[in-house]
Amino acid sequence: MYKSIGKISKKAGLSPGSLIYIGEERNEKTKITLFNYDEQSFQEKQIETVDECLSFKDSPAVTWINIDGLHQVEIVENIGQCFGLHPLLLEDILDTGHRPKMEDYGEYVHVILKMLFFDENSNNVVTEQISIILGSHYVLSFQEREGEIFNQLKERIRSGLGRVRKMGADYLFYALIDSIVDSYFVVLEKLGEKIELLEERLVTNPSPVTLKAIHKLKTGMIFLSKSVWPLREVISGLERGETPLIKEPTGIYLRDVYDHTIQVIDTLETYRDMITGMLDIYLTSINNKISEIMKVLTVITTIFIPLTFIAGVYGMNFEYMPELQWRWGYPAVLSVMIIIGVLMGFYFKRRKWL
Amino acid sequence: MYKSIGKISKKAGLSPGSLIYIGEERNEKTKITLFNYDEQSFQEKQIETVDECLSFKDSPAVTWINIDGLHQVEIVENIGQCFGLHPLLLEDILDTGHRPKMEDYGEYVHVILKMLFFDENSNNVVTEQISIILGSHYVLSFQEREGEIFNQLKERIRSGLGRVRKMGADYLFYALIDSIVDSYFVVLEKLGEKIELLEERLVTNPSPVTLKAIHKLKTGMIFLSKSVWPLREVISGLERGETPLIKEPTGIYLRDVYDHTIQVIDTLETYRDMITGMLDIYLTSINNKISEIMKVLTVITTIFIPLTFIAGVYGMNFEYMPELQWRWGYPAVLSVMIIIGVLMGFYFKRRKWL
Amino acid sequence: MYKSIGKISKKAGLSPGSLIYIGEERNEKTKITLFNYDEQSFQEKQIETVDECLSFKDSPAVTWINIDGLHQVEIVENIGQCFGLHPLLLEDILDTGHRPKMEDYGEYVHVILKMLFFDENSNNVVTEQISIILGSHYVLSFQEREGEIFNQLKERIRSGLGRVRKMGADYLFYALIDSIVDSYFVVLEKLGEKIELLEERLVTNPSPVTLKAIHKLKTGMIFLSKSVWPLREVISGLERGETPLIKEPTGIYLRDVYDHTIQVIDTLETYRDMITGMLDIYLTSINNKISEIMKVLTVITTIFIPLTFIAGVYGMNFEYMPELQWRWGYPAVLSVMIIIGVLMGFYFKRRKWL
Amino acid sequence: MYKSIGKISKKAGLSPGSLIYIGEERNEKTKITLFNYDEQSFQEKQIETVDECLSFKDSPAVTWINIDGLHQVEIVENIGQCFGLHPLLLEDILDTGHRPKMEDYGEYVHVILKMLFFDENSNNVVTEQISIILGSHYVLSFQEREGEIFNQLKERIRSGLGRVRKMGADYLFYALIDSIVDSYFVVLEKLGEKIELLEERLVTNPSPVTLKAIHKLKTGMIFLSKSVWPLREVISGLERGETPLIKEPTGIYLRDVYDHTIQVIDTLETYRDMITGMLDIYLTSINNKISEIMKVLTVITTIFIPLTFIAGVYGMNFEYMPELQWRWGYPAVLSVMIIIGVLMGFYFKRRKWL
Amino acid sequence: MYKSIGKISKKAGLSPGSLIYIGEERNEKTKITLFNYDEQSFQEKQIETVDECLSFKDSPAVTWINIDGLHQVEIVENIGQCFGLHPLLLEDILDTGHRPKMEDYGEYVHVILKMLFFDENSNNVVTEQISIILGSHYVLSFQEREGEIFNQLKERIRSGLGRVRKMGADYLFYALIDSIVDSYFVVLEKLGEKIELLEERLVTNPSPVTLKAIHKLKTGMIFLSKSVWPLREVISGLERGETPLIKEPTGIYLRDVYDHTIQVIDTLETYRDMITGMLDIYLTSINNKISEIMKVLTVITTIFIPLTFIAGVYGMNFEYMPELQWRWGYPAVLSVMIIIGVLMGFYFKRRKWL
Repeated sequence: MYKSIGKISKKAGLSPGSLIYIGEERNEKTKITLFNYDEQSFQEKQIETVDECLSFKDSPAVTWINIDGLHQVEIVENIGQCFGLHPLLLEDILDTGHRPKMEDYGEYVHVILKMLFFDENSNNVVTEQISIILGSHYVLSFQEREGEIFNQLKERIRSGLGRVRKMGADYLFYALIDSIVDSYFVVLEKLGEKIELLEERLVTNPSPVTLKAIHKLKTGMIFLSKSVWPLREVISGLERGETPLIKEPTGIYLRDVYDHTIQVIDTLETYRDMITGMLDIYLTSINNKISEIMKVLTVITTIFIPLTFIAGVYGMNFEYMPELQWRWGYPAVLSVMIIIGVLMGFYFKRRKWL
Repeated sequence: MYKSIGKISKKAGLSPGSLIYIGEERNEKTKITLFNYDEQSFQEKQIETVDECLSFKDSPAVTWINIDGLHQVEIVENIGQCFGLHPLLLEDILDTGHRPKMEDYGEYVHVILKMLFFDENSNNVVTEQISIILGSHYVLSFQEREGEIFNQLKERIRSGLGRVRKMGADYLFYALIDSIVDSYFVVLEKLGEKIELLEERLVTNPSPVTLKAIHKLKTGMIFLSKSVWPLREVISGLERGETPLIKEPTGIYLRDVYDHTIQVIDTLETYRDMITGMLDIYLTSINNKISEIMKVLTVITTIFIPLTFIAGVYGMNFEYMPELQWRWGYPAVLSVMIIIGVLMGFYFKRRKWL
Repeated sequence: MYKSIGKISKKAGLSPGSLIYIGEERNEKTKITLFNYDEQSFQEKQIETVDECLSFKDSPAVTWINIDGLHQVEIVENIGQCFGLHPLLLEDILDTGHRPKMEDYGEYVHVILKMLFFDENSNNVVTEQISIILGSHYVLSFQEREGEIFNQLKERIRSGLGRVRKMGADYLFYALIDSIVDSYFVVLEKLGEKIELLEERLVTNPSPVTLKAIHKLKTGMIFLSKSVWPLREVISGLERGETPLIKEPTGIYLRDVYDHTIQVIDTLETYRDMITGMLDIYLTSINNKISEIMKVLTVITTIFIPLTFIAGVYGMNFEYMPELQWRWGYPAVLSVMIIIGVLMGFYFKRRKWL
Repeated sequence: MYKSIGKISKKAGLSPGSLIYIGEERNEKTKITLFNYDEQSFQEKQIETVDECLSFKDSPAVTWINIDGLHQVEIVENIGQCFGLHPLLLEDILDTGHRPKMEDYGEYVHVILKMLFFDENSNNVVTEQISIILGSHYVLSFQEREGEIFNQLKERIRSGLGRVRKMGADYLFYALIDSIVDSYFVVLEKLGEKIELLEERLVTNPSPVTLKAIHKLKTGMIFLSKSVWPLREVISGLERGETPLIKEPTGIYLRDVYDHTIQVIDTLETYRDMITGMLDIYLTSINNKISEIMKVLTVITTIFIPLTFIAGVYGMNFEYMPELQWRWGYPAVLSVMIIIGVLMGFYFKRRKWL
Repeated sequence: MYKSIGKISKKAGLSPGSLIYIGEERNEKTKITLFNYDEQSFQEKQIETVDECLSFKDSPAVTWINIDGLHQVEIVENIGQCFGLHPLLLEDILDTGHRPKMEDYGEYVHVILKMLFFDENSNNVVTEQISIILGSHYVLSFQEREGEIFNQLKERIRSGLGRVRKMGADYLFYALIDSIVDSYFVVLEKLGEKIELLEERLVTNPSPVTLKAIHKLKTGMIFLSKSVWPLREVISGLERGETPLIKEPTGIYLRDVYDHTIQVIDTLETYRDMITGMLDIYLTSINNKISEIMKVLTVITTIFIPLTFIAGVYGMNFEYMPELQWRWGYPAVLSVMIIIGVLMGFYFKRRKWL
């Protein structure tokens, strides 16, 4: 996040609509895949130059162009010109630090979403941006890099199973969003496991390491929330059917995605509440431990310091100390010491410090 | 919760409307019970195959089909086909991790609710999902397993007591929801008892065990809230009479359920506030205890350490220590020690440390 | 609260509209008082059987029937039948754990409110439920037991002073609510005094007793809020003039009650904020005290432990310890000890520990 | 606040509209000042009996009657009758514990505001109530006692400078409110200075005195907020131009006052956030200090206690202790002690405790 | 902030619309720059007297007058008269402590914004106020002093690149706002870096210095929020196209600025959440450290105090202490001591204190 803000800041003062890629450096070649299908026919091909798209643009069949890689700005620009997209929209596509949003440009609808992955190496949730544009007969999707998230959907298109081939571009649009939101549950599951683990550790053996893990999880959750919260508005905006591009039969499916979004947000909120609660518990546990340690220290010190004092008294070298000559002086003092010690012990026992 | 999220995550990428049971593994056979009644007649029977329902589907009398067990997906699917239910609705029924919701499909209304039980073994609140569908002359209810929650209602139908036989399917629908919401109060009572118990323990003998109990209760409350909060919206949606399936005379009863729901939510919020307050009190109590322990330690140490030092001085073996030869040296030193001790005692007394 | 929830839970599964008294056990006989008045005439009588009311029901004069005691369910039921009240309404009257609400039944309006009393014995706020029903020419009020809250109002009716005799049933209805809301200020005054007292104690002598008092007050405040918050909605609902039963001239009076309600809520919120602040202060004070105690302990220990060590060294019994034979050995060691002590003292003085 | 609640509570049960002064006891005579002006003429006089006002009531010029002192209830009552004010309005004027509000009575608008003063003696913010009534050609203002807040405005009227003489009663009404809101900034400035001072003290020398000052400031802020928050609603209500008494040209000025009100509220919120932050910092600082003190104690104790033990061992009086006869026994033991001490020192150095 | 409040307070009582500069003292001469352009022509000049503006006022080309410096009140006043601006508007321009706002005066729209700079010296965010007025063919901008924020925009106007010369005054108005909001990201980047740095320090080496830095950052963030939050409302007000001065094609660009504003607010909120979290972590870390220190102290003390006591016993000078004469007395006691020490060590090992 810090980084994307930093990169946005470099654009300050530039003319609006300036196309600059804001995101991680990448070297792979941008990959453009085109799907063209209706209930009967199906075609899939890798595209080299954007011009190849032109012929499909006005075909009555559904055209889906998936672009993997945003760092080659000229490709995004060409597609934009080809489909008549607004320059500000292209700017948004290239700014990978954008928050999720939905914008209705009349002839097409633009949606920005985040894909979430749990990175096992850094033990962190990684976000990637995806932009989806729905036109009357086409869908464009822009990802930061190639991913597997749409593989099952592609398979369904290829095989003609399910509803997707029978319905229009708006259903494809829905299916893409659905794939993304579904993938959130995988990440939530991972996070849930981590929280469960931390809770166990909190109970069995709290340590500064646990504290750092809780802190990291909490920070991660704050960033995650910012990616997921706006989703609600985005999908609710689509579902309310404000745009004629989304037909009624697809509306009911969007309602389903909306339900899932709410569930994701709910779960995240629950997780946040739980992590906040864990910090309180942790603080209280430490103070508990301090209290336990103090008790041990106090009991030992309080019992032995008076006894040591008595021993010190009879270790003085005064010439005239009658007790020192007494026959039973030593046993008497020892007895007194034992009695004091035992009484102290009882006292602490009664106060439940032992 | 973690588990249901995990199971949802396995569905990622599947075609929407794919029917997969998401919930606990079960072995019992699904039990289907059919009630068919009007003011005069009444019929109750166990159904083996779903086809038996067909004949009742269009009867003018009220038909209630109660399905106990969702793990046999094909049964749910058959019923869905028989009553013309939307595939997404069936998917929701089978996903037992769903949050409460109300959806109006025009010809029928679908409500998902949670049943709550207090499990004495795990000392925890267990939730179960129930889906209720209201059509023009029928009500379908899907439970995860057989339960006793509707027994009193069934009895009322059998005996013809109360209003239920005189009114339509919408009243039955209401009566089912009412039974569920009423059962929440039983759980709330249990929770209230636990909180009262914890509060007493907090006052009489706070310990890490109390802390763990508070934490567990708090976590449980967070989950519980997520089950109960959406209820408000659900029942308010029904009450506002947006669907013609619910007639006016039933509306007033739904308003009553709505009141109860608000009361449940209110009580839960109160409980949460109280538990949060208990944590603060607990932390403060521990620090109080630390302060008490510190006082004891400080008083004892501060009194005896100077005295021990004096004793140590006269325990030194210097050849030329005139005091050692004095006749009254020993009593004098003893007196000085006693005076110092008493003065210290007074000092601490005045500072209220003793 | 725990108890009322417990009792509600016993009703789970019963037919809606079942009349069961939920509240404290009582033995007194239910007392029914009837007032019938217009600008000229006035009549007051104790009623034994509900049938006596019937003759007044349709009189053009204002009829006020006040019922003290809800435990004789049949009386409430009879009145209900007599005035044609809905069974759910009667159920609500008998459920003394209900939250405040306003319901418009068309021919009559039903309002549930809470009366608050400060119980000096338990040092706690006690709530009692009151239901008021406004019809076109009558007002019914149901209290849990006889109380003094309406005495001044009754006096005003008897004497014909003020506006009450000149106006209709809606003004009486308003006057009843006004009496109740006014009585809240008495309770708020008591609570304010308790908070002031606690704050003083917090400053002069914080102790675990203070902590318990704060906790109790806080818990009490949580419950109180639940009784008072819904009032806002109730009275605002009446004031907005949604029901034709309340005429315009009375509306302006209800706006006045609404103002008072807001003031009550405001004051309660202020009290809650203050109590929350007190807990923080208390925690901080304790840590302050710990820090003070630690300083004393550290200063004493740090000064005397090195000195005691030196004394210990010269208390060793080695044969060859040349210092022991020195003429000025003892005074030299003593001086060294004093110098160390004084230096330490200065050091702590400079660090402001002394 | 406690007190005003207490006094309100005494009114419980009285007939609404009963005129009772609720506020501080005062002895001064109520002072009534009348201003009558239009663009050309101007008249100012002290009024003894309310009847003198009557002649001005219907004059087309603007009449402003300013009443200083509310404790002479009959004067307020007379004015009320003279201008035909509603009894509830008069009741509100006399209840100085009222929260700010705006009420539109059709023929006149009533506004209750609070004046704030910073009392240097008690180091606290003092509030006073002011009621302003705007009629078609007159403005009435009721203050608790004589003050200087309107002096500059009076001067502007007398001298005919500025817009005030050229515009109607509504502008005067606005000018009064503006004077009051402007005076809030003086109080905010004082509070800002106090916060700055406390922050400095927090950094340089936190002590229990600072804690008490923070607590007092926080409590004061809570009460202050209650006086200022409702202002937003009041002035927004006036600004929205709901009453025809306020003409368009004055509307734009009210929008300006509204801006100031928002700024006052904003500043107050900022102050509250800062004070809350200071408490957290204070708690953390104390724990920091405890940790520092503990380090000193632990280092000293841990270094000297083992050494003292060694000295104790060789101070034992056993007959057969060969080391005691060794020639180099004493220097050897001393060396061992020094080595242990130095090693300990290094250890604590490395752990950054020194 | 304290200061600006202080200065505002000095205006209390003055006639509204009194022009007084509220802000830092400055000595530079106010600099007035005029731009006049349409698609073909372009003119830029420094203006000495305001009268020079008059000729441009009604030209159909776009006129932008940028005023750097507000301390010469008469210049602002002259411009106000020249363009017919409302006195209250001029008052707002001169009050540099104003919160951001948008006001529609019909013939022109007035927007107040804050510019943010990160001052490396004071390590703090500095705000400056800018007022922008949009008329039908002109834009006026008032800055506190000369700055570089509009340099790139000026360059674009001069060179005729981008859209700015092709569009009207509303686009220029938008471009100014866009420049300002873009500059916020530079500040956010700086703050992000500081937070990252603090987080690292928190983990590696928490100290009171870190605490002060966190506190300072938090306070700064509170003030910052107050500058940025109202922006949302301001720009949303413009974007909703309530004023005819802003034409449709510019509307879409304002939506883009709105998006950026939301992103700024979002980022700020995230930062605040993170800083709050850091304080909690810090407090917990300190308590952790206290607990660690206590363990060391307790272990050392608990092991050596009993041993020192034993040594003390055999250092007593009683005549009849049989052990002292035993041949193996000394080794026996030493062994006992070692055994006790080792046992204690094992005990603490098992309790994980070592």
